[in-house]
Amino acid sequence: MNCAMLDRLREIVGAHGYYDRQEDLEPFLIDHRGLYRGATPLVLRPDDTAQVRAIMRLCNEHGIGVVPVGGNTGYCGAATPSADGSQIVLSMSRMRRIRSLDPQNGILIAEAGCVLADVQAAAASVDRLFPLSLGSEGSCQLGGNLSTNAGGTAVLRYGMMRDLVLGLEVVLPDGRLLEELAPLRKNNTGYDLRDLFIGAEGTLGVITAATCKLYARPAGHFTALVAVADPQAAVELLSKLRSTSGDAVSTFELMPRIALELVCRHIPPLTDPFAQAYPWYVLLEIGIHWRDPEVRAAIDTELLAVLDAAAPLDTVVAANETQREIFWRIRESIPAAQRREGVSIKHDISVPTSELPRFITEASERITRIAPEGRIVAYGHLGDGNLHFNVSGPGGNADDDLLRHAADIQRSVHDLIAAYAGSFSAEHGIGQLKRDELLRYKNPVAVELMRSLKRTLDPGRIMNPGKILQDC
Amino acid sequence: MNCAMLDRLREIVGAHGYYDRQEDLEPFLIDHRGLYRGATPLVLRPDDTAQVRAIMRLCNEHGIGVVPVGGNTGYCGAATPSADGSQIVLSMSRMRRIRSLDPQNGILIAEAGCVLADVQAAAASVDRLFPLSLGSEGSCQLGGNLSTNAGGTAVLRYGMMRDLVLGLEVVLPDGRLLEELAPLRKNNTGYDLRDLFIGAEGTLGVITAATCKLYARPAGHFTALVAVADPQAAVELLSKLRSTSGDAVSTFELMPRIALELVCRHIPPLTDPFAQAYPWYVLLEIGIHWRDPEVRAAIDTELLAVLDAAAPLDTVVAANETQREIFWRIRESIPAAQRREGVSIKHDISVPTSELPRFITEASERITRIAPEGRIVAYGHLGDGNLHFNVSGPGGNADDDLLRHAADIQRSVHDLIAAYAGSFSAEHGIGQLKRDELLRYKNPVAVELMRSLKRTLDPGRIMNPGKILQDC
Repeated sequence: MNCAMLDRLREIVGAHGYYDRQEDLEPFLIDHRGLYRGATPLVLRPDDTAQVRAIMRLCNEHGIGVVPVGGNTGYCGAATPSADGSQIVLSMSRMRRIRSLDPQNGILIAEAGCVLADVQAAAASVDRLFPLSLGSEGSCQLGGNLSTNAGGTAVLRYGMMRDLVLGLEVVLPDGRLLEELAPLRKNNTGYDLRDLFIGAEGTLGVITAATCKLYARPAGHFTALVAVADPQAAVELLSKLRSTSGDAVSTFELMPRIALELVCRHIPPLTDPFAQAYPWYVLLEIGIHWRDPEVRAAIDTELLAVLDAAAPLDTVVAANETQREIFWRIRESIPAAQRREGVSIKHDISVPTSELPRFITEASERITRIAPEGRIVAYGHLGDGNLHFNVSGPGGNADDDLLRHAADIQRSVHDLIAAYAGSFSAEHGIGQLKRDELLRYKNPVAVELMRSLKRTLDPGRIMNPGKILQDC
Repeated sequence: MNCAMLDRLREIVGAHGYYDRQEDLEPFLIDHRGLYRGATPLVLRPDDTAQVRAIMRLCNEHGIGVVPVGGNTGYCGAATPSADGSQIVLSMSRMRRIRSLDPQNGILIAEAGCVLADVQAAAASVDRLFPLSLGSEGSCQLGGNLSTNAGGTAVLRYGMMRDLVLGLEVVLPDGRLLEELAPLRKNNTGYDLRDLFIGAEGTLGVITAATCKLYARPAGHFTALVAVADPQAAVELLSKLRSTSGDAVSTFELMPRIALELVCRHIPPLTDPFAQAYPWYVLLEIGIHWRDPEVRAAIDTELLAVLDAAAPLDTVVAANETQREIFWRIRESIPAAQRREGVSIKHDISVPTSELPRFITEASERITRIAPEGRIVAYGHLGDGNLHFNVSGPGGNADDDLLRHAADIQRSVHDLIAAYAGSFSAEHGIGQLKRDELLRYKNPVAVELMRSLKRTLDPGRIMNPGKILQDC
């Protein structure tokens, strides 16, 4: 990229629309987990869709790679530019308008740079719920949520990001605009283009805005921490609660004892809510919408009866909003507690829910054989069949022993997942981190189709080059 | 197509796997509404996926067009072969195995030829619900439901067909197999291929099986017929009921007085459930999952209070399952009653729900100006913003007057829909019937992308040629 080209790009966005000083570029050069370091001469910060179109037209004409970035909270390096400095970064953070907010139709149109928490707040301001909820919601952006098809802790009831949108506005790699924001719940007029861009990690186009679905806001929640003997007991409890509540269980998160211990050790003032130690815990939540106190009381009685009948080791039902928040903070503090404890090897796997117990047993045996010093911290979205099956080091110098086994551990866990016909990346995507896994484990016909689609939609190969598919 | 080629195709499926006598071919030559008549020398009825692959390989090699057909209940002629006899028909009706049924994971894997009612029954046999529900459920097939992204009367709560599947098995136009049936709720490993084939009306590949999601079966239903003064009153009632119930309203169907009159006239023994006539009616239903009678009683009380507060003209709550079935039969008999009354011009439109009242007024004015003899029968899925905005003839010879205005009426209604940024085909698809409308009203960039995708996935242009896009 020569200086004249950089000047033309700067001109499109104006004086406040770019970064090019090293200290301003720096945050865009490293991914959230510190796995990758890239280089770029320029971070563009367009203010509107027209600027994005002009940028893409110019870059397409000159074959310049473009790396879209939202809150830079991804786990797989999808938003980090290549190390050779040949790509420019497209930060969406100035495009953060809520374009429309319509509680009666349950619709919100927001730009890609909106922070997820701001979208949630806008919905709440009109007594509606935007249900996507994840640890990084204070900094991740809607465009990133869309591009990675984000999951989180309410998928069980509300679905993934893909399920939460009706329409998109997308700038194609050559600058054409695909404007499909109309808030229609039904529209069977040709191929489903929207879902191609969702989860494509910015490799097929730039999502600039989305029409999001809003939901009824619960009047209250039934939230409980339940101690169980093993994952199988958790699976059976979930099945009963889903039948009873009509699939209204919004959260069903499994946590092993070690996760609670790490949280209590590293994240004050959190403490163990139970008087004694148990091997496994479930955080469960059901939104209650009925406002009549008699309905609520009757539902509580029925839910407690289901819990009783499942005979868990122990149960604490949140008595008020404060206690509910403490339960949630325990669950959400696990990743931070793991980081403070030391190194860990992460897997983001899914299998059908009822197979999770057997998978946990078999995967744990494999890890113990490879790296007896590893401590297994398998927690997450049991209701979706999705666990963050992580292995923490023993701490101190011995952590290096674990890291030496990292490749073997990952291979072994992912081979096992393949035997279960499960997913080696349930919600975190591919990015740079899992490109080789994609080629190793994904159906080859699916990979061929993906390549064909990439070539069709981005023949100049300028959209986030090298992500998902290395050679496209 | 020469005789040798037909013999090779017959050989793939064996003696019981095809029709080639005129009387057997006949049902496949005319569409459900009698709008199109095609011709074909051969209807192939493969028994398994391997046969479908062999058929597609051979047809792709020799450039023979293939028209997949399910229950042949579509409204737009998507399953009728061309009139020149150059295409073969691929009937999926022998592929009707339920391959697996797993209530604990809420999963059912079924072949494309399964009749929808059989899929519903399989789910019910393990105390689960497969929620897709439409008038033709006794004869339409899963593959057709997928290929048209079917809607129906439970979309409000459960979504369209697209939302009810986790995975597909698809034979590509060149015979390659895309096997993505793993019942995973989360799997972010590359582009979303599944949704390309759903709603593609058989123009991108042949769907041979699908992994369907099952849901909790309600313990009972709150079902009511509510008489209201106008559509606006219905919209407001829906908004309140959705907030109160936590989006649990599964059905909210609007019917004008004339629809009820036609049903009472033509479909005995159905009669008006009210003692006097009202201008508009709503059929609403909420599934109640809680089994405790106290919960049910408390919920009924809260729902009745919401209904009371909305001050409708009249309300009948179904007192038992028999009455509930009568209410449903009234709604489901409207299309048959319209057919018996005489000719009608149909539109399948959608706009945001809150704009429906204004749309109904404006569209009715337009029709009255063009064809004062037309009787407007605007009914359907108000909760989805989707109405079947039909115009019935006055009966007898005067019906011809209306038909002379058919093109003008349709143009005027669809122009109005375009002004609302609505959809001219909310759930019925494109097929042959709405190809011109697609070019006239769809975003041109979307049409360009659709053409690119068609060329990429079906370079030989053999998959259901001439459907959706005429020239592809």
